[in-house]
Amino acid sequence: MNPIKYKPIGIIHSPFPEPKGIPRQAIGAPEITAKIEIFDEYLEGLTDLEGFSHIVVIFHLHLVNKSSLMASPPWDNREHGVFATRSPHRPNPIGISVVRLENIDRNILNISGVDMVDGTPVLDVKPYIPTLNPTEGIRTGWLQGKTEGMNKSKSGDR
Amino acid sequence: MNPIKYKPIGIIHSPFPEPKGIPRQAIGAPEITAKIEIFDEYLEGLTDLEGFSHIVVIFHLHLVNKSSLMASPPWDNREHGVFATRSPHRPNPIGISVVRLENIDRNILNISGVDMVDGTPVLDVKPYIPTLNPTEGIRTGWLQGKTEGMNKSKSGDR
Repeated sequence: MNPIKYKPIGIIHSPFPEPKGIPRQAIGAPEITAKIEIFDEYLEGLTDLEGFSHIVVIFHLHLVNKSSLMASPPWDNREHGVFATRSPHRPNPIGISVVRLENIDRNILNISGVDMVDGTPVLDVKPYIPTLNPTEGIRTGWLQGKTEGMNKSKSGDR
Repeated sequence: MNPIKYKPIGIIHSPFPEPKGIPRQAIGAPEITAKIEIFDEYLEGLTDLEGFSHIVVIFHLHLVNKSSLMASPPWDNREHGVFATRSPHRPNPIGISVVRLENIDRNILNISGVDMVDGTPVLDVKPYIPTLNPTEGIRTGWLQGKTEGMNKSKSGDR
């Protein structure tokens, strides 16, 4: 299949110059604020977004320079297939975070609960709609019982 | 910024040859089954994925050939900025669905709750981890009170 090409719609300005020390998941860092700068040509697309308390941010993990099919997440002492983890070292380094949208100042989205490094290219923003999430019959495999620590830990803790 | 290139890791085999008639959201179609064929070179990355009841599928909306900064979703009679909607006609046509993982047969993920068209390229698969979702202080803007119909409607209903 042909490669798929995307063009960033914006860029993240965050307090993290490098991956080390970044919260491992956005929900574990409600106090961390950042800005998403949406490029001017996409400004109109933000219309009515401010009514949503949370947004889904899809971004390119631009500092990832290797991928591996097996990953060793910090919440376990075993390797798992990369698709069974949230490791950034994926065949396609795409990140997804749900963050709180504090407000919008023209083309700047002020957000909190952030796990992205400064300079991260943004590919898409979608409204967060909780009714789209399944709630019944959830199983979380090897992560079962391990997610409490996950929400609080930071990269480099291990 | 430079374009970002991704290579599909797999392809979706679904009962929908075209967008018309597809459930508008995966959660509204629990009875629809499909297969994700993961290409052989990524097989090892599926290790331990079967323990998860649901997966997040990131895919390329390959049939979308135009984008628009304003969108007219069927649940409202007004236009909204595309980033405040789930319209497929986005600057970067990236789709995200949470689907049920029924089982895995070598490189085939049997899934249910499907809103993707047959032949859709898959960019990434991640485990669905409900504790990563925010649950408090949620506002859904223009969609408030309209999501009930959303989960049940199909493309082309309007």
